[in-house]
Amino acid sequence: MLKIERFITEFAKEFDESFINLLPSNKYSLKLYKAMKYSISVGGKRLRPLFLMEISKIFGVNKKMAFRAAAAIELIHCYSLVHDDLPAMDDDDMRRGHKTCHKQFDDATAILVGDAFQSLAFEILSDKKTHPNPEVRCILINELSRASGAMGMVGGQMLDLDAEKKKLSLEEILLLQKLKTGELFRFSCIAGLILSEKKEFKKFINFAKNLGLAFQIKDDLLDIEGDEKKMGKKTKKDYSRGKETLISFFGKDKAKKKSEELIQNSKKLLEPFGPRAKRVIDLTNFVISRNW
Amino acid sequence: MLKIERFITEFAKEFDESFINLLPSNKYSLKLYKAMKYSISVGGKRLRPLFLMEISKIFGVNKKMAFRAAAAIELIHCYSLVHDDLPAMDDDDMRRGHKTCHKQFDDATAILVGDAFQSLAFEILSDKKTHPNPEVRCILINELSRASGAMGMVGGQMLDLDAEKKKLSLEEILLLQKLKTGELFRFSCIAGLILSEKKEFKKFINFAKNLGLAFQIKDDLLDIEGDEKKMGKKTKKDYSRGKETLISFFGKDKAKKKSEELIQNSKKLLEPFGPRAKRVIDLTNFVISRNW
Repeated sequence: MLKIERFITEFAKEFDESFINLLPSNKYSLKLYKAMKYSISVGGKRLRPLFLMEISKIFGVNKKMAFRAAAAIELIHCYSLVHDDLPAMDDDDMRRGHKTCHKQFDDATAILVGDAFQSLAFEILSDKKTHPNPEVRCILINELSRASGAMGMVGGQMLDLDAEKKKLSLEEILLLQKLKTGELFRFSCIAGLILSEKKEFKKFINFAKNLGLAFQIKDDLLDIEGDEKKMGKKTKKDYSRGKETLISFFGKDKAKKKSEELIQNSKKLLEPFGPRAKRVIDLTNFVISRNW
Repeated sequence: MLKIERFITEFAKEFDESFINLLPSNKYSLKLYKAMKYSISVGGKRLRPLFLMEISKIFGVNKKMAFRAAAAIELIHCYSLVHDDLPAMDDDDMRRGHKTCHKQFDDATAILVGDAFQSLAFEILSDKKTHPNPEVRCILINELSRASGAMGMVGGQMLDLDAEKKKLSLEEILLLQKLKTGELFRFSCIAGLILSEKKEFKKFINFAKNLGLAFQIKDDLLDIEGDEKKMGKKTKKDYSRGKETLISFFGKDKAKKKSEELIQNSKKLLEPFGPRAKRVIDLTNFVISRNW
């Protein structure tokens, strides 16, 4: 295992231990609690929390505070996976090598698990443990709610469902990706600046734009070329459905090249931070070098 | 039509005009926007917003601010209806005399509409238009997220789904009702105090407890005795499914008497506010006198 892969695996393990403790301890419905715990225990790379926490480090943000913002975005990401896997949506039985929530429990439970994760994300951010300044908490909530909603992730998922049925232009594919994955990456990349009460996000918004799109191209490549075992889910899904992606638009080679350019652009934006940004640069490289 | 019914109808009309304007104006996905608009346009009594705004008036809260908090709670309520109506949950085709969201559109769209409503509720509360003091906004968000999540409405819905399959004790029925409807009523009844930066909610928490339970008993009575046309939805659903309610536990007469006692208790708590609470008292009476 490469050094960066080991680092990511160890981060995920440490993150998950505290993450599970954020679930409500008083369980009125044991079934709901079990399904929530199951859905966050099946793991994942925790890339969004990792970028959030490593960028926060550059700005000297308290680790516990960064963790809470990281947990909030991961809850939003987890809720979107649980809902997207439902039969009415992408209809997936396996995720990260485990049964999806509705397969392990049932559809109704999976709907409620997703709903409860979303509420919990905002509950966490609104608590003063996340930051002593309530203005900072409100900015985080405003950014995350917009990134998640109809003008962000949910809007992107809606476009994605429609994308199976019609031919998209390049602009439409880019909009879909921006909403579906880009907006959450954007939050990951600016949350540290919000927590450190910086006002100027432009550099990190551009960083996130490049990173998010590179991540999506790599995801689409892995859907075509990836190893099902390593990925823990069915591959060639989008491809066999004829869903349009940047790969189907550009072709594999050109898309790969594009993702490399995007990663170069991302790293360039981090240059002014010198060695403090070393870890974030390693993670940025990983986004397209990964095979899981 | 009684005076109070006319007042409620007029309030709902006025509320809805501004409510629809809170939907995102830049529509990336027209289908999602249409389904969101449809789901809030099919109406409803808007009782939660009405209690919130009328109690806010007692404490001299600015109407525009109270409206935004009222819109947030109604969005949470609307999202719960859209998700609860899904085939995987209560499987309802009609609501308020119109097709439910998943019947008018499809299941995937209904899931996304609910998800987007929830994000929008927190986006609205986090915006400084809701209150100049960010601490107040954080308290509203914290209260609403807890009222909505696993320890509130979603937890109650989970218990409710299980309630079809097993016999419940009185304590379990009361817990289910407290979570499923009581917590949102609690928010409606304390939001005005939060907005006016009062610290002492106890009286209104008790008011909400009595009111929420009386509301639920009346809802269960209407499920048995109500007129489908007036209600705009199928009745006798819970009854025919053998779902346990306070009616099945106490019998109709005793449950009715209980609801009257609860309303008396509620009104007693408002006495110290004298004539300023007149409208809230009228609404409190309506909760059990209504036939829709």
